[in-house]
Amino acid sequence: MAHYTPPLRDMQFVLHELLHVADEFKQLPRHAEIDADTINAVLEEGGKFAAEVLFPINISGDQEGCTLDPATHEVRPPSGFKEAYAKYVEGGWPALSADPEYGGQGLPIVLNQCFYEMLNSANQSWTMYPGLSHGAYECLKAHGTAEQKATYLPRLTSGEWTGTMCLTESHCGTDLGMLRTKAEPVAGAPEGTCRLTGQKIFISAGEHDMAPNIIHLVLARLPDAPVGSKGISLFVVPKFVVHADGSMGERNPIFCSALEHKMGIHGNATCQIDLDGAVGTLVGQPHKGLAAMFVMMNAARLGVGNQGLGLTEVAYQNAVVYAKDRLQMRSLSGPKAPDKPADPIIVHPDVRKMLLTARAYAEGGRALAIYIALLIDKELSSDDADERKECAELVALLTPIVKAFLTDNAWIATSHCMQVYGGHGYIKSAGMEQYVRDARINMIYEGTNTIQALDLLGRKVLGDNGARLKKFGRLIAEFVEDEGTSEAMQEFVNPLAELGDKVTKLTTELGMKAFANADEVGAAAVDYLRICGHLVFAYFWARMAKAALEKKDSGDPFYTAKLHTARFYFAKLLPETAGLIRSARAGVAPLMAMDEALF
Amino acid sequence: MAHYTPPLRDMQFVLHELLHVADEFKQLPRHAEIDADTINAVLEEGGKFAAEVLFPINISGDQEGCTLDPATHEVRPPSGFKEAYAKYVEGGWPALSADPEYGGQGLPIVLNQCFYEMLNSANQSWTMYPGLSHGAYECLKAHGTAEQKATYLPRLTSGEWTGTMCLTESHCGTDLGMLRTKAEPVAGAPEGTCRLTGQKIFISAGEHDMAPNIIHLVLARLPDAPVGSKGISLFVVPKFVVHADGSMGERNPIFCSALEHKMGIHGNATCQIDLDGAVGTLVGQPHKGLAAMFVMMNAARLGVGNQGLGLTEVAYQNAVVYAKDRLQMRSLSGPKAPDKPADPIIVHPDVRKMLLTARAYAEGGRALAIYIALLIDKELSSDDADERKECAELVALLTPIVKAFLTDNAWIATSHCMQVYGGHGYIKSAGMEQYVRDARINMIYEGTNTIQALDLLGRKVLGDNGARLKKFGRLIAEFVEDEGTSEAMQEFVNPLAELGDKVTKLTTELGMKAFANADEVGAAAVDYLRICGHLVFAYFWARMAKAALEKKDSGDPFYTAKLHTARFYFAKLLPETAGLIRSARAGVAPLMAMDEALF
Repeated sequence: MAHYTPPLRDMQFVLHELLHVADEFKQLPRHAEIDADTINAVLEEGGKFAAEVLFPINISGDQEGCTLDPATHEVRPPSGFKEAYAKYVEGGWPALSADPEYGGQGLPIVLNQCFYEMLNSANQSWTMYPGLSHGAYECLKAHGTAEQKATYLPRLTSGEWTGTMCLTESHCGTDLGMLRTKAEPVAGAPEGTCRLTGQKIFISAGEHDMAPNIIHLVLARLPDAPVGSKGISLFVVPKFVVHADGSMGERNPIFCSALEHKMGIHGNATCQIDLDGAVGTLVGQPHKGLAAMFVMMNAARLGVGNQGLGLTEVAYQNAVVYAKDRLQMRSLSGPKAPDKPADPIIVHPDVRKMLLTARAYAEGGRALAIYIALLIDKELSSDDADERKECAELVALLTPIVKAFLTDNAWIATSHCMQVYGGHGYIKSAGMEQYVRDARINMIYEGTNTIQALDLLGRKVLGDNGARLKKFGRLIAEFVEDEGTSEAMQEFVNPLAELGDKVTKLTTELGMKAFANADEVGAAAVDYLRICGHLVFAYFWARMAKAALEKKDSGDPFYTAKLHTARFYFAKLLPETAGLIRSARAGVAPLMAMDEALF
Repeated sequence: MAHYTPPLRDMQFVLHELLHVADEFKQLPRHAEIDADTINAVLEEGGKFAAEVLFPINISGDQEGCTLDPATHEVRPPSGFKEAYAKYVEGGWPALSADPEYGGQGLPIVLNQCFYEMLNSANQSWTMYPGLSHGAYECLKAHGTAEQKATYLPRLTSGEWTGTMCLTESHCGTDLGMLRTKAEPVAGAPEGTCRLTGQKIFISAGEHDMAPNIIHLVLARLPDAPVGSKGISLFVVPKFVVHADGSMGERNPIFCSALEHKMGIHGNATCQIDLDGAVGTLVGQPHKGLAAMFVMMNAARLGVGNQGLGLTEVAYQNAVVYAKDRLQMRSLSGPKAPDKPADPIIVHPDVRKMLLTARAYAEGGRALAIYIALLIDKELSSDDADERKECAELVALLTPIVKAFLTDNAWIATSHCMQVYGGHGYIKSAGMEQYVRDARINMIYEGTNTIQALDLLGRKVLGDNGARLKKFGRLIAEFVEDEGTSEAMQEFVNPLAELGDKVTKLTTELGMKAFANADEVGAAAVDYLRICGHLVFAYFWARMAKAALEKKDSGDPFYTAKLHTARFYFAKLLPETAGLIRSARAGVAPLMAMDEALF
């Protein structure tokens, strides 16, 4: 039977022993009162919700999927999803990190990060329903009028209503400059009021019966819009029109016209959305919608990385139980369970390699994801403007790495964990193949992983001549200097320092090449992102090894396991960079030399 | 719309310009009459069958799946599968490479290899129905009594009946020594007649309505069987009892009791098979069933590698069309289609990298697979005993590489090709995600890819102190010596020679380590197989580059494309070995040091 145990101990390690978040929060006036016990208590409750309410409806949700009634355009998510959402709202979870001005609890993003990791482990498809609301909330909070904020934010904060992001059209996803949905100003209505007409696709959580109203954030073109990405405006389009007094009015003609049949995330309603003159109001400035939408998108990209993290963790947990339980063959070095008909497969080195790969990616990803959440808390709440800026720069640098590296790792890890099950992993009832199918979307949506790589190398690194990268490099250099004399840390510090040097050289080389030919960026970007992902992971794994070494004599086996996993990471996963660097340096010619007609 | 074009030109290149199979066949008395035109004509017809009959029912077969009637235990495959099978039989395809003694056409295995690649591209699920028959045919041909051969082989050859392999039980797949199905001799019946009782799972093509009888090859234990793998016997158990005169008698109690719900290959009936005293007859010696079954298994492993190859090819073909058609973003180096709203995505270097990865894996895999088929033809038909032995040794060495490397590559390639489609790739109707799901089983069945790696490093390489590996190494050394002075070949020969040296050193190092600790084999095996896979691919890609260079002035763009793909392979894929070698050398400690309880 599939199972999930919230990884509270490891979260506490990262929060309190690695990042010392409570100390950090003391420096932030808004969060100065929060202590470790409060954090742990909230996460324990959150973990219960994930494990007890969401996890039991994950496999059934995949099997049942969503149903569209073509007559009413209403969508029914899988059994239990609506009830789970009611419990989520009742528990106050939507408000966790939201602004108290709109009814939020105002807790740090760090808590939301850990909470959402557990939701994603338990049920990615379900988690996307409230997850999308965060995007709409952030977007309206940053760009909405006072009236829009008053109308929508309290009810998004409470979870009474949910939100969506309506960007993609069938002919454009990556390239939103080509979108065609039209917005016509309504004569006589308040300024910014338009009727929207067009069709959107791939709208996650686009329609459902879990909330009485759905608040769509929609990109469209005004009549005077310039061609391309500078002619896109953002609108808020509620499923039911909302009157000035906050009451719900008539059904707005924004309908789900079809559900997509997908490889995975079957429990989430991926909708084709038709707008037939739906009334919406402008959010932010005309023609500046893409920039406004990017507020949502950056947070969403971190959220997608977190989906990868959640799937990696739950796949690992299940594969470990199976590997300890399943008897098959004897160890090559002699029987380990001579009283049984065969040894448990965890005695076999390659089974351990698959398990440890997932474990090292989960724990490394968790450290990185919580670190970024802490940076965001500082960016939002520090009273030091320089620190806010510094944190924002690091968040910008690390966001594409979190999105792409964690989701690529999840694809590798969930596939390994499925492989541990042998043929049984290929059968739906075990639940393992679902993790693989669900994990696959995370490499695609919110900007494909190639787009993330271009964002990292082109915009975030070369775009400021490596200034942001140097900021992170300084953290590594400081750590290497501090720990370079510790004998016990040599095995971690040396490869970290070596990879840091290689990344510096590679970055300079790619920058020079890009001067001559901009396609060099596109040729190297995906390898480069993965190399940087390993650099970041090596930094956090070295720091975690240090924290574990310090507690080695405590007798707590947690630290022994952490050290072993760190050693595994450096011995077996980091070496991937050797091949990636060669491939990145091989340049653009092997890719572009062949004429298109010859493909 | 999904499409498939049989890669006849590339097959002809491998057959006639790389391997010169018609010349080779002249040395084999059995095939001396076969010329290139005959080969090409057969493959052209075979390609038509694959593209026109099987490909159109691939996506629909995935969506419809198989249906079990629990009352009758009968299984209905997806619509069109039965009719396609009738055409297959009518066309004489089952008999292609079968022995003329039993009604076969006696054509070389090389032809069957190419034909099956196309069937797998067109419809892996369907192809498994006749594919399993080959295993039963080979097994009965090698180990059956004269009576069993006379009863079953002509009707397996004609395709009138189909076959299965019934090995796995729910508690054992890799470790068949633990199996529990019982065989009780029937008093008074001819010797070897038994009644079998037990339950088998994961039986591909285990039940269907495409043929009037199904011939199951079943592993079971006789009453006096020793414990473990030396107590397993092989039986032939027909769905309907066959009388001495060849007519079909009563229904044998060997029933499909359930169908598995799987990640992919939905069109194939993966059956739980209950044997309730089903009558079977012993094949080969008592207690020697596992060895007899391995005759089927080696051929089946090559067949699984071929499934990976087929999926890689068809995924590539579709992704190329999409990449030329889909307009999205401008090239970083300036617009390439200024008259269109955006450039086709094939202008983007990383899209090309994904496409070329699939292409290089498909074409490299095809060269290797046809090469092995030729070795098998020589092994079967040469009148030189030394040559037969030499070929058998190379086949034994390369079989685990074909199975694991080609199927791992297919997983990478189909996922890349799906990624080229962006969000549209995740939608079922595009057909791309099905290739990924179907490809995943190939890494598991017929011995997981870890088992293949252990077979390669432990048995095939270290087991004979590297003698087989040296045989292949000599082919590389000869090629390097022959081409080492050609300036145009330096870019291919040098990295090939370098990798060959590294593999030699690594093999010696692993052999030494394995002396001290047998688990070192398990720790390094999976990395080692992938390194050897690249060594073999590098050898074939260098040979293909040579063949293409020789025709460079012909003006035929085929050779230009071949050269570009070779350069891509050496620049962007071969470098993976740098990381793999480091990981393989990192040894067993990082895997085994952590106590099982700490996982």
